Amino acid sequence: MNDARRNPGDAPSLTAAQVAEMVGGRIDGDPEVLLKGVAPLGQAQSAEMGFLAQRRYLREMAGTQAGALLVSEELAQAVENHPCRIVVKDAHGALPVLLSHFYPEAPREPGIHPTAVFGKGVALGKGVSIGPYAVLEEGVVLGDRASVGSHSVLGAGSRVGEDSVIHPHVVLYPKTQLGARVIIHAGARVGADGFGYVPDGEGIAKVPQVGGCVLEDDVEVGANTCIDRGSIGDTRVGRFSKLDNLVQLAHNVQVGRCVLMAAFTGVSGSTEIGNGVMTAGQTGFSGHLKIGDGVRVAAKSAVLRDVPAGMTVSGSPAREHRETLRAQGLMFRLPETTQKIKELEKRLAALEGSEEG
Amino acid sequence: MNDARRNPGDAPSLTAAQVAEMVGGRIDGDPEVLLKGVAPLGQAQSAEMGFLAQRRYLREMAGTQAGALLVSEELAQAVENHPCRIVVKDAHGALPVLLSHFYPEAPREPGIHPTAVFGKGVALGKGVSIGPYAVLEEGVVLGDRASVGSHSVLGAGSRVGEDSVIHPHVVLYPKTQLGARVIIHAGARVGADGFGYVPDGEGIAKVPQVGGCVLEDDVEVGANTCIDRGSIGDTRVGRFSKLDNLVQLAHNVQVGRCVLMAAFTGVSGSTEIGNGVMTAGQTGFSGHLKIGDGVRVAAKSAVLRDVPAGMTVSGSPAREHRETLRAQGLMFRLPETTQKIKELEKRLAALEGSEEG
Amino acid sequence: MNDARRNPGDAPSLTAAQVAEMVGGRIDGDPEVLLKGVAPLGQAQSAEMGFLAQRRYLREMAGTQAGALLVSEELAQAVENHPCRIVVKDAHGALPVLLSHFYPEAPREPGIHPTAVFGKGVALGKGVSIGPYAVLEEGVVLGDRASVGSHSVLGAGSRVGEDSVIHPHVVLYPKTQLGARVIIHAGARVGADGFGYVPDGEGIAKVPQVGGCVLEDDVEVGANTCIDRGSIGDTRVGRFSKLDNLVQLAHNVQVGRCVLMAAFTGVSGSTEIGNGVMTAGQTGFSGHLKIGDGVRVAAKSAVLRDVPAGMTVSGSPAREHRETLRAQGLMFRLPETTQKIKELEKRLAALEGSEEG
Repeated sequence: MNDARRNPGDAPSLTAAQVAEMVGGRIDGDPEVLLKGVAPLGQAQSAEMGFLAQRRYLREMAGTQAGALLVSEELAQAVENHPCRIVVKDAHGALPVLLSHFYPEAPREPGIHPTAVFGKGVALGKGVSIGPYAVLEEGVVLGDRASVGSHSVLGAGSRVGEDSVIHPHVVLYPKTQLGARVIIHAGARVGADGFGYVPDGEGIAKVPQVGGCVLEDDVEVGANTCIDRGSIGDTRVGRFSKLDNLVQLAHNVQVGRCVLMAAFTGVSGSTEIGNGVMTAGQTGFSGHLKIGDGVRVAAKSAVLRDVPAGMTVSGSPAREHRETLRAQGLMFRLPETTQKIKELEKRLAALEGSEEG
Repeated sequence: MNDARRNPGDAPSLTAAQVAEMVGGRIDGDPEVLLKGVAPLGQAQSAEMGFLAQRRYLREMAGTQAGALLVSEELAQAVENHPCRIVVKDAHGALPVLLSHFYPEAPREPGIHPTAVFGKGVALGKGVSIGPYAVLEEGVVLGDRASVGSHSVLGAGSRVGEDSVIHPHVVLYPKTQLGARVIIHAGARVGADGFGYVPDGEGIAKVPQVGGCVLEDDVEVGANTCIDRGSIGDTRVGRFSKLDNLVQLAHNVQVGRCVLMAAFTGVSGSTEIGNGVMTAGQTGFSGHLKIGDGVRVAAKSAVLRDVPAGMTVSGSPAREHRETLRAQGLMFRLPETTQKIKELEKRLAALEGSEEG
Repeated sequence: MNDARRNPGDAPSLTAAQVAEMVGGRIDGDPEVLLKGVAPLGQAQSAEMGFLAQRRYLREMAGTQAGALLVSEELAQAVENHPCRIVVKDAHGALPVLLSHFYPEAPREPGIHPTAVFGKGVALGKGVSIGPYAVLEEGVVLGDRASVGSHSVLGAGSRVGEDSVIHPHVVLYPKTQLGARVIIHAGARVGADGFGYVPDGEGIAKVPQVGGCVLEDDVEVGANTCIDRGSIGDTRVGRFSKLDNLVQLAHNVQVGRCVLMAAFTGVSGSTEIGNGVMTAGQTGFSGHLKIGDGVRVAAKSAVLRDVPAGMTVSGSPAREHRETLRAQGLMFRLPETTQKIKELEKRLAALEGSEEG
């Protein structure tokens, strides 16, 4: 059952040869096979390409009905019995062009739903699309062809760049600034107050959060992710960076360009994340750190200190990855180590006994 | 103050004997006590049953005013001084029938709020309930007696089975498929794009996410939980499985039947979770794993490898639970171990000295 | 570029002397400098105070253009070359009064948007503000000057105290009770069903969640945070407590007064958190615990046992902080420890050989 997929089967079929040309690959086998889609090996039908980019999925070759294989070079030999292989350097890298062809995105029809609510002085670009019950407060600026999903609320003075896509149920707090081609998924909260308080007599006083929140061009923000505005400066996410669902960026965080952050990554206040950093799921950063360009952080790490550029870290607290692996490995060998120490003690006692004797 | 409870006191009172019959338990003491509710031991009033299923809450017996006790067999002896005990094998197991009687759910009145927005070709079953400002896009299919809360957005082509309950502020992305009797809590995002990118020159290109997202019958999804659609196949959650609040399932994840996942559980792309698996809070799974049936995962574990059926794992990285406990225990004894090694060194040096001497 | 900040430059300028008086500090240098805002050292302009509360930001003094410095006493000497310093005991503590002056909150104009939907018997205080598409179900009570943001849904019978602020897209489940001056950020879900199930033949049965959910006066709840209603009693958050974004409180949790919980903190069912507790990010608590007053929990800790008042804990499982630090430190020295044991073995074997020889 594949009909939960986006627009399956609506696009014109291609021959294997046409696919190979489209992705800059080569055909091993029959170039005339007609194809109308891509699917996992285990689900692909005869008119679809099976997708193979990882060795562990070779196990699904046995029963595959795929009419062709889209396969990474390094795995091509392992599937040479299949009658039609489209071999590319990296099968993952070939997906964007293929999927855009076979499963075209439903076009967003320009237009403003009559239930959308506008404050004073809202400025709309050409060809914008605004869904039912969207609310654009006073002074919002929307670039050309930007789209705003149902119920999304764009706070007073916020700006959205051209061709950006705001999915339903997004909230931009007042004055949030989005660049061009930004994608914000459902339920993301951008520009909320940071977590700032000071003791105040018997209670706790809120520190007003008056900074801004800026997402540069080509940023994508996952569902239910939260990005706080700055306390007195700005919070900023650099161009091309992508945040998964349920990520949290605290006030004043600075994220560089081309950063990838997986789900449940949390970055505490004022920490600076360099360009090209990648964080796996459930990683955390304490506040006021500098994380260098190209740093990689393994899943569930707790980064509590600055990390120099290029380093891979893991663990809680995080250290250089191989150091952590070695220490963890030895930790799991502690039962034997403890046993070994006991034996040493025994042998030593025996020696001491004979010495004294 | 208990008036924050659901419909307190609206249902007819029962005698302790009637309660015992309803839950298949026995009465120790006065069968005529009149009861109109269940409450924690420390809060229960004279017309309520105090609830006791764990030994640690015996401490609250002292001051309880409960007119009767609903108590698990294993704890019955410890409270034998109370004048009215309703003893069952497992007090927790008795709650569904009792609470449904004493605190009946407010009936959902069928009807469609005039502010709901419908796309073309929406098909509604009998007796559906649709709240204010709900949006059902083109081609949505709603089963009999399904209810859709205020503001929820059902994307184009999504399907909701009979008797399902969509709370307010839910977003189903286009083509999401829900079975019968599914419950989706406020703020859940089902079918959003997975986190898939490939490098692209100076930037990062999005891999279109074209797969589906299928939740089978009797699934419950907690508040603000996110379930991504598949990349090229489907993401799927099996029958009877329950996800807590703030859970994240990445693209192509396959969850079996009767799985329970506590808050902040994160499952990375394409991982398969077997039937009956239970994950405690803040656990994570890396991608492309196979987790066998009946596996249990302790809180905050990071599962980085396949886990065979029936195993309990813990730790980061996760290993068999007792192995982790032993290693962690020895880790906390490292100060003594280190001390012991120092002493061995001293004694050895003494021996070596006498040897040379 | 600072125009993403809240209402920059709208307030009257102050002289450095006036600022010093406002915050109870002293002027070192020119008292006549005119100031109209506060900014991070690296971003401050000549008409702004640079903010300096941590030694690590001294690095940004070099290029600062700040017309004055707002500096904590302990750092005053390090910046004595700057021509205008406003010295206070704690620069953070001075922020609330200054920021409220320079960046006044946009006033909430009382009024009810014509698209708001009201159930029967809703009771509104004086001067309330209700945004577009808000839904107040049957019997909701709203205190004087409370404000409800766009699209927020207040379930039947819920109550909101005076001067409380509900941001857009909040859901209060039925019967939720909020005190006065409570702030709820976008996407928070208060009073959803707890995660309670019992096995039921081949499936899993839901335990009805019939308890209440009560937030006392002056509580603040972050974006997309979830607080479940009680199962049979109430879930409660005490006065002045503040929850960051993406926090999860399970059913029946009791949070004391003046508690601060950072993002991704998760508290399992029925756990009691004492007054003044502070939890860093990504910490978790298992169920049915008692956490004493003033306890501090380091980032990413997993608290699995009761913690006595005043203790600082860390680690997974959490132990007393220094104990965890020592054990972790020794874990990372295991490579040397293992090497040392090998040497002891060699030396011992040598002795044993000479003994036998």
